[in-house]
Amino acid sequence: MSANPSYPLFDPSDPVFRAHEGGKLGVHATQPLRDRADLSLVYTPGVADVCTAIAADPTLAAAYTSRANTVAVVTDGTAVLGLGDIGPLAALPVMEGKAVLFKHFGGVDAVPVCLETGSVDELVEAIVRIAPTYGGINLEDISAPRCFEIEKRLQERLDIPVFHDDQHGTAIVTLAGLMNAATVVGRELSSLRVVVSGAGAAGVAVTRLLARAGVTDIVVCDSRGVLSTSRSDLGGAPHKRRLAATTNPRGVVGGLSDALMGADVYIGVSGGQVPEADIARMAPDAIIFALANPTPEVPIEVAHRYAAVVATGRSDHPNQINNVLAFPGVFRGALDSGAAQVTEAMKLAAASAIAGLVASPTADEIVPSVFQEGVADAVAQAVANLT
Amino acid sequence: MSANPSYPLFDPSDPVFRAHEGGKLGVHATQPLRDRADLSLVYTPGVADVCTAIAADPTLAAAYTSRANTVAVVTDGTAVLGLGDIGPLAALPVMEGKAVLFKHFGGVDAVPVCLETGSVDELVEAIVRIAPTYGGINLEDISAPRCFEIEKRLQERLDIPVFHDDQHGTAIVTLAGLMNAATVVGRELSSLRVVVSGAGAAGVAVTRLLARAGVTDIVVCDSRGVLSTSRSDLGGAPHKRRLAATTNPRGVVGGLSDALMGADVYIGVSGGQVPEADIARMAPDAIIFALANPTPEVPIEVAHRYAAVVATGRSDHPNQINNVLAFPGVFRGALDSGAAQVTEAMKLAAASAIAGLVASPTADEIVPSVFQEGVADAVAQAVANLT
Repeated sequence: MSANPSYPLFDPSDPVFRAHEGGKLGVHATQPLRDRADLSLVYTPGVADVCTAIAADPTLAAAYTSRANTVAVVTDGTAVLGLGDIGPLAALPVMEGKAVLFKHFGGVDAVPVCLETGSVDELVEAIVRIAPTYGGINLEDISAPRCFEIEKRLQERLDIPVFHDDQHGTAIVTLAGLMNAATVVGRELSSLRVVVSGAGAAGVAVTRLLARAGVTDIVVCDSRGVLSTSRSDLGGAPHKRRLAATTNPRGVVGGLSDALMGADVYIGVSGGQVPEADIARMAPDAIIFALANPTPEVPIEVAHRYAAVVATGRSDHPNQINNVLAFPGVFRGALDSGAAQVTEAMKLAAASAIAGLVASPTADEIVPSVFQEGVADAVAQAVANLT
Repeated sequence: MSANPSYPLFDPSDPVFRAHEGGKLGVHATQPLRDRADLSLVYTPGVADVCTAIAADPTLAAAYTSRANTVAVVTDGTAVLGLGDIGPLAALPVMEGKAVLFKHFGGVDAVPVCLETGSVDELVEAIVRIAPTYGGINLEDISAPRCFEIEKRLQERLDIPVFHDDQHGTAIVTLAGLMNAATVVGRELSSLRVVVSGAGAAGVAVTRLLARAGVTDIVVCDSRGVLSTSRSDLGGAPHKRRLAATTNPRGVVGGLSDALMGADVYIGVSGGQVPEADIARMAPDAIIFALANPTPEVPIEVAHRYAAVVATGRSDHPNQINNVLAFPGVFRGALDSGAAQVTEAMKLAAASAIAGLVASPTADEIVPSVFQEGVADAVAQAVANLT
């Protein structure tokens, strides 16, 4: 979901900047501090008893600190929205916004952690070192392919959930939408020919989760065309080699245009633009998820000309595929149940839970609204049930 | 301010544990999130404009993120209260409590960062890497002598205030109290013979700040006696060698008992106990600051037998030397004025500001009460004036 829009100049009177004055996050005490008696409970000397108890039994930290409800939203600012590598400081407004969504939708206390970027080793070491503070780690806007290795190594070293939202949040909500879109067109997931355009963080995770959910015919394209085992230019991208080896069962070669011939589903997580002639090659009753923001890969009116169901990343059109349907509930469920990780089964269950919130899917309603009540609760319950 | 009390067993019905249920900190949004329009301001697509603006002009982060009001309370849990090396997880309740105090007294949004301990290099690297997130770093409960090197190297590498509260908060409030205690006994700081018992984080910082303030005759003792250039056992402790070289102008040798002969001021930041016979050797109109908590180095009734002014770290006696008189205002002032560091001059000014809040010092009132209105504001103003 990237794009290269041209942004307006800084304008302090713009409502966006007004809404950001002084930042978007604050910290507050959950206990009163009225007098010396309160002080002696929440700070010295009383606090020493709690420290001593946790030192003797670390599991008590879950009940007597904020850790069990606190998630770090960690970035190095290398792949922020569609803006690219803007660095940790410029990424902070997104991390604050994410923290606002965590609290609003999931009741999770999330705090930004913006890291000076560096090698995979350096980022992993820094995150492992700060990890005792948190009940979970939400990775955000870290560039591919570094994000894959960072997430994997953190999951190996930490006993708290580590979840790269650009991958898995996108994958969960995409799968939820595709489940209901398939219902609308009267198809089974397993019968669909799916084209995923984009082999970055979102493309990789969407492909993996769709395969887990039973989609067997997935063709993935990067900017140079279809990923296949015959491609000789994937040497430096092991995640693409893995995709090439595990997808494309019909051995399609060529470009996105070739992949779209007879395809049932187009999922764009790439930016870029798809020519109308290519979309016209899709099968009847096609499903188009053009998720680049703010400019979908397929113009919405073009998509509607050829597809039975159209979804985008935009809030001003029906069927918004928005990660916020997933991540607050995923962490809420993982934290509440003490999950040590977010498993593939949990992601599938989260997608099913989201899809299930639409009682009667239609072409204009394949996912719940972001503000629909109960989304995070349903996702949390689905995740917690699998812990 | 250390001690080795025996703590009670974990008792969930104890008021201290009740006050810690669920932790003591929460995060909240400072902007409303009522509908899609709000969402488009605080998150995508609007937030991208703020990111772009900060990428182009990093100084805008001060106005449009929470960074300028956010301080990390960083520990590795190696020297927590009087409990010693209990690790980062067990230290978290103290860091949460500290954050509560930051907010209550200084309006500062502070967040705990509890680090897996490691070498000085490792801790410095981790803190430098997360630093873009914060407007200041409050180091807390990190063992000596590592704390000195960590603070120094962070100050060299970061352009935000880095302040080890166990050192400088203690030093500022101790100096404030000593200023007024000197007034009570009709003396100038420069005329006082001062003994500092304890050569750890607090002892080093107290000694340095008193010297800055004009105290010329300071003798520092560690557990083996007076620090002097004739000591041959200071090889592994460069901070003690530096103290030995810059204090003890009369060349006192021996133990604390020798140092106290004719001394005007005893400042205990050591734990341990001082025999009454040694206290009896002090000069008339002595000043005793026995700051170990909860058990002062000199029993309070013994101190009153020999001293004109007695201060402790305890909240249930007059003259509580409590860091909370300093750190909220120090950071409030540094953040508001955009200070890149907390200078020695700022610490002196903070001490003077605290001392000045006691209109007419008496033996029972040399520092303001923790809950006296306006303390943090006065300290903040003093610090900001020097930026």
